[in-house]
Amino acid sequence: MGNIIVGQSGGPTAVINASLAGVFKGGKDNNIKVYGMINGIQGLLEERFVELNKEIKTDLDIELLKRTPSAYLGSCRFKLPNIGENDEMYEKIFSILEKIDVDKFFYIGGNDSMDTIKKLHTYAKDKDKNVQFIGVPKTIDNDLAVTDHTPGFGSACKFIATTIKEIIKDATVYDAKNITIIEIMGRNAGWLTASAAITKSEDCNGVDLIYLPEVHFDIEDFVRRVKKLQKNKKSLVIAVSEGIKNKNGTNICEIEEENTILDSFGHKSLSGTAVTLAKILQRNLGCKTRAIELNTTQRCASHCMSEVDINESFLAGVYAINLAMKGESGKVVVFERTSNAPYKMDMKAHDVYDIANFEKKVPINWIDTENATVKKELIDYIKPLIQGEVYPIMVDGLPKHLRLEREKY
Amino acid sequence: MGNIIVGQSGGPTAVINASLAGVFKGGKDNNIKVYGMINGIQGLLEERFVELNKEIKTDLDIELLKRTPSAYLGSCRFKLPNIGENDEMYEKIFSILEKIDVDKFFYIGGNDSMDTIKKLHTYAKDKDKNVQFIGVPKTIDNDLAVTDHTPGFGSACKFIATTIKEIIKDATVYDAKNITIIEIMGRNAGWLTASAAITKSEDCNGVDLIYLPEVHFDIEDFVRRVKKLQKNKKSLVIAVSEGIKNKNGTNICEIEEENTILDSFGHKSLSGTAVTLAKILQRNLGCKTRAIELNTTQRCASHCMSEVDINESFLAGVYAINLAMKGESGKVVVFERTSNAPYKMDMKAHDVYDIANFEKKVPINWIDTENATVKKELIDYIKPLIQGEVYPIMVDGLPKHLRLEREKY
Repeated sequence: MGNIIVGQSGGPTAVINASLAGVFKGGKDNNIKVYGMINGIQGLLEERFVELNKEIKTDLDIELLKRTPSAYLGSCRFKLPNIGENDEMYEKIFSILEKIDVDKFFYIGGNDSMDTIKKLHTYAKDKDKNVQFIGVPKTIDNDLAVTDHTPGFGSACKFIATTIKEIIKDATVYDAKNITIIEIMGRNAGWLTASAAITKSEDCNGVDLIYLPEVHFDIEDFVRRVKKLQKNKKSLVIAVSEGIKNKNGTNICEIEEENTILDSFGHKSLSGTAVTLAKILQRNLGCKTRAIELNTTQRCASHCMSEVDINESFLAGVYAINLAMKGESGKVVVFERTSNAPYKMDMKAHDVYDIANFEKKVPINWIDTENATVKKELIDYIKPLIQGEVYPIMVDGLPKHLRLEREKY
Repeated sequence: MGNIIVGQSGGPTAVINASLAGVFKGGKDNNIKVYGMINGIQGLLEERFVELNKEIKTDLDIELLKRTPSAYLGSCRFKLPNIGENDEMYEKIFSILEKIDVDKFFYIGGNDSMDTIKKLHTYAKDKDKNVQFIGVPKTIDNDLAVTDHTPGFGSACKFIATTIKEIIKDATVYDAKNITIIEIMGRNAGWLTASAAITKSEDCNGVDLIYLPEVHFDIEDFVRRVKKLQKNKKSLVIAVSEGIKNKNGTNICEIEEENTILDSFGHKSLSGTAVTLAKILQRNLGCKTRAIELNTTQRCASHCMSEVDINESFLAGVYAINLAMKGESGKVVVFERTSNAPYKMDMKAHDVYDIANFEKKVPINWIDTENATVKKELIDYIKPLIQGEVYPIMVDGLPKHLRLEREKY
């Protein structure tokens, strides 16, 4: 039997390393050598990889890895060419894998990363290459098709809801009119922003309005609603997705030019939705407004992880190994929820062709457009995923993380 | 013996309620009724107060209160007129206190709030009023004179350093040049920003540059330094205080007009320092830049508290009661550090006249201007204050907070 290689791809999460730990543990328990690609498929093409057995030496290292945010192996945003367009690149990948005797390839990522699994699996089948390809889902955005939810989503929700509960406490402290607008990640899917709704509980009135990108955002209606709410409540807290758009499809953050920062790839940076709305409210209502962007902390706050999420992420890695041991390829680990209360979840293997490149948005019938909030179904869907805590291992007052030997110098 | 009243004032912190819990517990243990002012002295003037014994009913409530962020009683930014300018207002306060038989007045706050203690104590002495006034320090900014440090500072540092460690992990995940600029609270004092330095440890290279408001910020020098650092390191993380200024005293966030938001009081909002610097670097160096504003979460992240800080905050409240029981007035509880390793701290009473309205900045000889970072002395000063963890009491996956009965409806 050959060796294993595993890579991480796309935006990091607080628990993507728990899935890596699962793949590693699964391989180790089967006495198979596990390689790790540095910076995903992009690094592999440059023959950058490490022997994980030499890096993750003890059981404590595995626990540390599970609690280390962001991609331990580094990540990439690299799309393979279509099959037929550049066979040289594919041949290069397979020759590198052959050189280190790898016949099982695992990739932890979102829908773009599953495209890599799909293409490599297809190429291997077409050319009779003896390598199996398995995808392990990961994304805080929860926008992967087929699976009930994705590893990383629950912890991001827990961090967002925890922080918003605290911000609500902070925002209500003065006896003066004020509006806080909290911007949450999500360009096309509002799953993360919906987690603002779970703050409403015995000890918290929750947020006042929630806007997801699945529904067109109407500025005039927004100002009207805020004005009306202000009549009965001094302090308002509003949650918005970074990607909300008006009915013409223009991002709200782009309607006022100065907020747009172009990144080096020429992409417009979407930061600034909350700032834009704060300016609009200030102009129209004249009261104190505050824009809060939760930013990258949403995807790397491993000091506030969900136990359910970290356990599922780890087990998804182990399950992927089991699939490969059974001879599967071209499959992605997916979650199937069999019960909500009590929460019960099964893991399954699903064909990568149904998953790669698709995007799952929040169902419109889970959104309450009339009251600019989300429905009970959506709250019931999220709540089980944030349950339980796994705390970091603390050293000298700060969370301890695991890192590659080469990064120490 | 008369009753006690306690109020909270100024910006909230993650542990200001631990001091409130200390005052309440101290009063309760002495069998004294404890009133709480709603929205500080501003609310008291409108006769808005509660009987805390009816709100905080059990020992568990006290523990919950300690773990509840922001000011449980609400806060205010209200400065009393100078003595002699409006005696009516002073007489009103004393008549309200008399009505509820209060002879001990505690105020938890920063240097502006200590001005309230100073004035009320002075008035009481001048007019032979039988009320004692004690100040309990609180501010994440750590800018209070005389005391070694302030309750609230340690937890804010712990949250900032924890988050920056995570952001560094996130920022280094791609194999591409990028710069992350993290904006930290502090208009005139750089204490909080200095906490970015404690991230440097066995498992983390730390931040690359640190800029405090105590030193003039030179944009050209900044761009030059970043360019030089980029030669050896792809991913840079830089920490800046929101209040950094150029040599003319202009806030960096104001040098590019469009970032300035006026609040309803006509104050310019200082948010935007990181965004301004990110734009400047992008123009000059052309690489991917990201601006992260840690924002209000710095002062309300009670899910990431320092055990040392929360214990000291609680004990400062108890100590304030003891001072009053001994007949003191016009005093503030201050901390005196007697040893750094092991960390040892004594509490003392200090004259409010030396503390009110003064601002303590970072000593220039603790700042390493040559390398745009901070010196070991400053790191050694901060580290003991972030030690240990007190976790929230979790219910249904989220931190449970205590709130006033009246806020429940």
